[in-house]
Amino acid sequence: MKVSARNVFLGTISSIKKGAVNAEVSLTLKGGTPVTAIITNDSVDGLGLATGKEAYAIIKASSIIIGTDLHDAKVSARNIMCGTIAKIVEGPVSTEVAVEIGAGNTVSAVITHESAKTLGLQQGGHACAIFKASSVILGVS
Amino acid sequence: MKVSARNVFLGTISSIKKGAVNAEVSLTLKGGTPVTAIITNDSVDGLGLATGKEAYAIIKASSIIIGTDLHDAKVSARNIMCGTIAKIVEGPVSTEVAVEIGAGNTVSAVITHESAKTLGLQQGGHACAIFKASSVILGVS
Amino acid sequence: MKVSARNVFLGTISSIKKGAVNAEVSLTLKGGTPVTAIITNDSVDGLGLATGKEAYAIIKASSIIIGTDLHDAKVSARNIMCGTIAKIVEGPVSTEVAVEIGAGNTVSAVITHESAKTLGLQQGGHACAIFKASSVILGVS
Repeated sequence: MKVSARNVFLGTISSIKKGAVNAEVSLTLKGGTPVTAIITNDSVDGLGLATGKEAYAIIKASSIIIGTDLHDAKVSARNIMCGTIAKIVEGPVSTEVAVEIGAGNTVSAVITHESAKTLGLQQGGHACAIFKASSVILGVS
Repeated sequence: MKVSARNVFLGTISSIKKGAVNAEVSLTLKGGTPVTAIITNDSVDGLGLATGKEAYAIIKASSIIIGTDLHDAKVSARNIMCGTIAKIVEGPVSTEVAVEIGAGNTVSAVITHESAKTLGLQQGGHACAIFKASSVILGVS
Repeated sequence: MKVSARNVFLGTISSIKKGAVNAEVSLTLKGGTPVTAIITNDSVDGLGLATGKEAYAIIKASSIIIGTDLHDAKVSARNIMCGTIAKIVEGPVSTEVAVEIGAGNTVSAVITHESAKTLGLQQGGHACAIFKASSVILGVS
């Protein structure tokens, strides 16, 4: 499978919590980074997901917010991955930012050009990638 | 009201499944393509949605992932529409891809320029548009 | 057309900046709150958007992150609306949070139950709704 989503991370399912319609599925990536996804119960069943199985977390770059100076800020987004800015590609409206989060993983985000400027993002700087559990698609081979 | 979302598909509601907060609503588009949406229960009630009624599925182009060679892979995203690439508009950061899925429907996706290149997308090629149920907004006239 | 998206705000277009594929469109809501949207150039043309015209900003509740104690935290998300929590509806997996942001506007967010608990959200408390420009759909009558 090849997908346009810039972020595809292999992990192991650590927990599944089902509601009436949606389920919360947590993975642990290599390197220990946790990722939480909200998908439908039907998808959990359809993919045969279970604790201990491997799965891919797929996140579109445009679903990711970049944050700096987060300190004690608290946000509802379940996924926050911090690291070093490896690359910035600027366009007139959109800018793509790649953040190396360790263990060989890089997170790509597409934000507005204006935000990249306001945040003063530059290669080598520290930044966090923030995304909601509902922005994560899970895949299995 | 006319909306900026590039993807607006008319369909008939085939099922509604309510949870505590969210509901899963499935539509069948003309041509038989199914679309699944996760919206709040309050919206189901507010719009007066019911099985058999017509509704529009509205999906922003930036919520859509493009995939190729899906064969052996399974993803949690509830909506996958495959077809032929009708148009590609390239920018420095973002690229817009239109996929004709039959029955007169075209799906527009905005992905990164980098992904379009990596996937080797070209007009006339085969591709699938993948989007989560939670990315779908429903509308009624 | 009525839409399932819980957040529909009327505003006046204050600026439009076009790129190769996407355009950045800024609105000013009644009460002065700014909202920024990234939509495709084709949509700007299709809807006939222009500075000074009225338009609706439409945001799905599941696209919104709730934050507290943001102080000097800086995020790339272009839209941050702070106010008082008016309502919380809890489910086993998802929780809906309504934040009154003044001028008669309320923002609804769907976050995970776990996050609502971790953030200690409660009615009457202060919270901010955070969403990306790419999560905003624009509508015109």
